[in-house]
Formats: sequence, structure tokens, C-alpha cells
Amino acid sequence: FPSKLPHVGTTIFTVMSALAAEHRAVNLGQGFPDFGCDPKLLDAVDQAMRAGHNQYPPMAGWPALREAVAAKIEALHGRRYDAGSELTITAGATQAILTAILATVHQGDEVIVLDPCYDSYVPNIELAGGVAVRVPLTPGSFRPDFARIAAAITPRTRLLIINSPHNPSATIWTDAEMRELEALLAPTNVLLISDEVYEHMVYDGAQHLSSARYPGLAERAFIVSSFGKTYHVTGWKVGTVAAPAALTAEFRKVHQFNVFTVNTPMQAGLAQYMQDPAPYLNLSAFYQAKRDLFVGGLQGSRLKLLPTAGTYFLCADISSVSELNEAEFCQWLVKEVGVAAIPLSAFYGDGFDQRVVRFCFAKKDETLVEAAARLRKL
Amino acid sequence: FPSKLPHVGTTIFTVMSALAAEHRAVNLGQGFPDFGCDPKLLDAVDQAMRAGHNQYPPMAGWPALREAVAAKIEALHGRRYDAGSELTITAGATQAILTAILATVHQGDEVIVLDPCYDSYVPNIELAGGVAVRVPLTPGSFRPDFARIAAAITPRTRLLIINSPHNPSATIWTDAEMRELEALLAPTNVLLISDEVYEHMVYDGAQHLSSARYPGLAERAFIVSSFGKTYHVTGWKVGTVAAPAALTAEFRKVHQFNVFTVNTPMQAGLAQYMQDPAPYLNLSAFYQAKRDLFVGGLQGSRLKLLPTAGTYFLCADISSVSELNEAEFCQWLVKEVGVAAIPLSAFYGDGFDQRVVRFCFAKKDETLVEAAARLRKL
Ligand SMILES: CSCCC(=O)C(=O)O
Ligand SMILES: CSCCC(=O)C(=O)O
Repeated sequence: FPSKLPHVGTTIFTVMSALAAEHRAVNLGQGFPDFGCDPKLLDAVDQAMRAGHNQYPPMAGWPALREAVAAKIEALHGRRYDAGSELTITAGATQAILTAILATVHQGDEVIVLDPCYDSYVPNIELAGGVAVRVPLTPGSFRPDFARIAAAITPRTRLLIINSPHNPSATIWTDAEMRELEALLAPTNVLLISDEVYEHMVYDGAQHLSSARYPGLAERAFIVSSFGKTYHVTGWKVGTVAAPAALTAEFRKVHQFNVFTVNTPMQAGLAQYMQDPAPYLNLSAFYQAKRDLFVGGLQGSRLKLLPTAGTYFLCADISSVSELNEAEFCQWLVKEVGVAAIPLSAFYGDGFDQRVVRFCFAKKDETLVEAAARLRKL
Repeated sequence: FPSKLPHVGTTIFTVMSALAAEHRAVNLGQGFPDFGCDPKLLDAVDQAMRAGHNQYPPMAGWPALREAVAAKIEALHGRRYDAGSELTITAGATQAILTAILATVHQGDEVIVLDPCYDSYVPNIELAGGVAVRVPLTPGSFRPDFARIAAAITPRTRLLIINSPHNPSATIWTDAEMRELEALLAPTNVLLISDEVYEHMVYDGAQHLSSARYPGLAERAFIVSSFGKTYHVTGWKVGTVAAPAALTAEFRKVHQFNVFTVNTPMQAGLAQYMQDPAPYLNLSAFYQAKRDLFVGGLQGSRLKLLPTAGTYFLCADISSVSELNEAEFCQWLVKEVGVAAIPLSAFYGDGFDQRVVRFCFAKKDETLVEAAARLRKL
């Protein structure tokens, strides 16, 4: 039978993690911590299991978890989402994004994505029968190019997907950019997916500017977040979608026939653990120290480092250390230097190669020190 | 924006569970146990968390869990699935079915479902751009009607979905029926989804006849199963898909961009717990006793009980106790009698009403005794 996704292979993250394991390399490719989470969070999940919370939770999610998320968004961004009708717990952010796309995109609808972008977006659009319209971020700076976004909007545009803090470039959108997007979308019916999974990782005193803060965005947005990234448990696969009630109603129609619901003890444990805001409030400081340690360790290397304003990624220009293209360089690096990285070309529809690769610094200090030592030899 | 699923509301299971809670009724509606799982299973999950298994597992699933599932299928049904390339762990059976449909059904493809069927199938087909072709099971007996299935197959038929043990009718397919299906599909390219989530609940000495036993079915089948139903943890949302490598490859292309992976500690805990086959080997005896207790308790009631050959459901004909249609009866029953049930009409595309409702007997003995006492008053 003909493939639904003929151009798709296995995601680059899986490929590079397998290669890293094979070559016993330091894995700075796929984005996940190599350290554990707070044992208190494990205690909370264990308590939930022992209390018997092991059957289907309500379809939209464990009520106390939705309440906790609503309270957090209101405290941080000033918008009140109704926990009953505007918040849904998902099996991770990727499932949230596919579900939002399936719930809104009709055959032939256009969806604008900003290249480079996470590798699930475009296959998600294709699975919904939509057409992905790839608009590049400004080369070099990775800033949104509003003239190009405006030019890409047509009567068939159903949806725009944005992502800040941005994977892979580690940039964050400014207030001026958020306002410009708000103005641009105001006269349109274009819906928004705002992928904010790195919301709690912004550095140097900057603030994460959620789409929730901008009424003209929030009214049309599915705001996607991830507990796995915030609490160092990427394998738990729990995320959230915040969206106005009319959007949430359509989202849940699809959600209930995709995963139906999400793991009960994890949800109940997270609800308990979220009572304390310290873990997410302190996360930026925690990761800023790791960024600085890694960047410090790379002093004297010939890699040209790009700034990291948010996320747990650091990008580096390889043009002064190698003649290879990004993908070849990453293959060579994992085998010969023992460090896994991700080529930025994997995030572009056309494989655009700007000689930049991405390292993940969500690692133990000793891992970062060792990786930096290896990379200094380049 | 226009709805992708204009005819869909909230699933009947959610609606009835909410109503049961509101009226403090005994909830025999939505299928889930009201008792706990084996504490050893919780210990295994807790150990996995404490051992640090909280990051992304391999995309296709925790290797030891895939190995355990492969060994189980081989022991029970004599077919060896390769754990590397033919088994995938999913976020429950519902996600498995949507993913298989998205991976195979192209715009305009036809998918045959046998009414009555689980309420996610048809919306899943519509989300993939396919056309659901509903073929009724034989009224009264719920046996497959092969003449009607054969007549429904066209050059556009991509997929057929079967389900045994069958929800809601509690029938199981016979060997003769499985062979007849095998012969019917032999000259076609029609793929199969074989929903076997109640595989370990078959009664009176019968055996579950998996599609894995029939080479002509297995070679074209996505065989779907559920840990939640087998181990009394419906809220954990872990399932499996077994399919030949070529089908699995396409399945995983979509899976990786839907949920990417499934909760790590649950998978690792289940892998550990599955070392002992006793829990699933003893499950039929466990539920047969509950079925018999419930049926015994209903002796003297005016409900006409249908036989339960498999699943944890019991169907009852209401025509001698009420003038109401199934949906009205279930509304009345939850409010006035304090027992929640599911109308079979919810499983039919055309709302076909045969005056039969479904009770779930995956409940504590005392729950079943109480529900039966209430129902005897009808
Ligand atoms: C879902 S695997 C990839 C993790 C991730 O988000 C990344 O590395 O970009
Ligand atoms: C996913 S909620 C419904 C549970 C179930 O399978 C049923 O009651 O039929």
C-alpha cells in the first residue's frame, strides 16, 4: 500500500541517539536530561498510584492538574483559562500539536510553519490533508520575517505555528515581535499553535512572552506546553493545551479519539507537585548555569557559538572547523570525537545548510565538561 | 472555523460516567474496574522511576516490554513477532487504532467497520480523510455476516476493522469465522485492524483466537492490545500493536509524530511484571466468577440477559421492563434506579435501537451485588 508519509524516515533525534549509544559518545543530540528529577515528584506519583488513581481520569485531564495549570498561567501571564472548558492534558506536546492540527485543518487548507522548525509539524499537517507553507526565519538571526509571513497568508491559510523559546535556534521572540504578529493576524481568521514547551528556560533576565499575554493571539491560539521538559521527565509524556472554549471543544473531539486520556498517576502526581512553584520558577537559573558552564568549557575551541536566549540548546557554527556539511559533520563528530549533535538542516524542509549544529546542554555538569573537552580538540 | 467532526459530541462513556457521579449511581457504564491492581505492579513502576527510567524511551517502546509481548504472543498463538521491527508500544489501544488508520488510509479510501463498534473507529477514519462503510453484524446474534462484508469490499477498500472479544456484544469469533475471513480477504489487498483488547477475557473454556494465529490475517493485520484492560490499570494508557515489518514501518512513521513514545516508568514496570504469566493466564477465571456472580444476582429480574462469551460486559434486553428506547432507558436508569449502563445504539452509525443495554462487570463483588439488587426491582 502507498505510504502516507513517503518522505519521512525515522526522526533525526532517534537516529542520533542510536548512533551515540553505538559509539559510546556523549549524547548532546536529542533533547533530554541525563540527570534525574526531584524525588518528591516520584513520591507524589507513587502516592497517587497507591491511593488507587490508576483508572481512566476525566477525558480532558485530572481536574486538580488543570486547576494548577490555570493558576500558573494566570500568575505568570495574566490570562485566566477556565480549567473546565479551556485546558486539556495531553500525552506530551507532540500529541497536542497533532491533535490541534487534526481538529482544525481540512483537506487543502494551508498551514504556515517557520523554518527551521520541529520535525513533527509538517508531517502532522500532511496527515490532516493540509498543505505546509514553509516561511524561513531570517537567515543568521532567526528572527521572524513579518513581510514574508504576511505574503504567505492566503484565503486558504487555516493555521500558523510559532515556537518561542525556539528549537533549534535558542532564540526567543520579543514583545515587539509578539505585537507585530498580533497586528498581522488581527484582520484574518488564521488560527495559531503557539509551541511554548521551553517556556521556563529563558536567560539573562529575559521573560518568556507567552501568547497568553496578547489577547489578539490568545483568542485564536492553542498554547502548548510540556511537563516533561520543565520537570526533567521527558519520558512521562504529559503536556497541556490552553485554548479558548470553542477551540478546546474541537480539540477534545479529536483528543478523545486519539489517546482518550493521559496517564492518571502521572497527572495526579504532577498536580500535587505543582503546588510548589519553586521548581519552575528556578529552572531558568538552573539551566543558565549549565549554559554558562558549557560555553565556558568551549572557550578556546574553534567552534563559533551562537547566543542562547532560551531552551536548553546551544548552536555552533562549524565552518571554521570543518569542510563537511552539517549532517556529515554530525556523523563524523559522533564517531571520531565522541559527541552527538543535531544538524540544523534536519529542521528545514529544503535541507538548508548554514554550517550550524545544535548541542543540548540539559546534562550533568560532568557530562558538559567532558563534552567541551572533546570539542575543544576540534 | 468549520468542525472536522461535526457529528461528534463527547463520547458516551464520558457522558454516562459524569451522570453516574452526579446521581451517585453504581457505574456499570464506562468499562473500567472499580478495584485496584496488583501492588506488585505498582512496586515495579516505582522501582523503574527510582532507577531513573524517566526520560524518553526508544520511540518504538521499551525493549524489554516489546520482548515480553513477543514472547507472550508466541507462547499463546504460535506466531513470532520480531520485537525490533514488528511490535510498537502505544499510548493505549485507541491511539494505536487512530495511528494505524492515519498510516494507511488515504483521502477517499474506504474502511469497513462492523456495527455495532467502538465509537472511535468512524471518527478516526474521517480524520484520515477516509470513508467509513458500516456493515452490520447479524442482528440478534451479532455474528459476522460474510456475504455482506464481501459485498462491501470495493477496489477502494483499504482496511477492515474487526474486534473479538467484541465490545459491546460480548461475543467472540469462532475458528470457522476467522478462517472464513481469511479466505474472504485472501484475493484482496485489504488490510486489517484486529482489535483484541479483551483477549484475556474469554469464558466457559473457550480460547481467544487472535488474528496472529491465521497467517492470511496476520500478514495484513495490525493487532491491537491493551495493558490497561488486562492489568486493571485503564488509566495508564499503554497498549501494543503487532504487525509485519512493512506495516510497522509505516505505523511508526505516524506514531513518532503523534505521541513520539509512551510513558517510560509504566513501560519498564510492565516489562518487569510481565515476567510472571499468571496474571493474564488467570484473568478469564477471575472475570468469569464476576460474570457468574452478576448473572446470579440478576436471577428473578425481568431483564433478559444475553450470553457473555468474552469481554467484561453483559448485555441485557430491556423490552420487557420498559417502553423507553435504549438511550432514554439509560438516562432513566441512572437517575431513578441508580445504575449506569450504556445503550447499544451508541455503537451504531444509524443509532439502531434493539432495546439492549450494556453493563460492565469489572467491579468489586459488593458493587455487582448492589447493582443486581437495584436491577432486580425493575
Ligand atoms: C521527541 S525527541 C526530541 C526531543 C526534542 O524535542 C529535541 O531534541 O528537539
Ligand atoms: C475509553 S473510555 C471507554 C472504555 C471502554 O472501552 C468502554 O466502556 O467501552
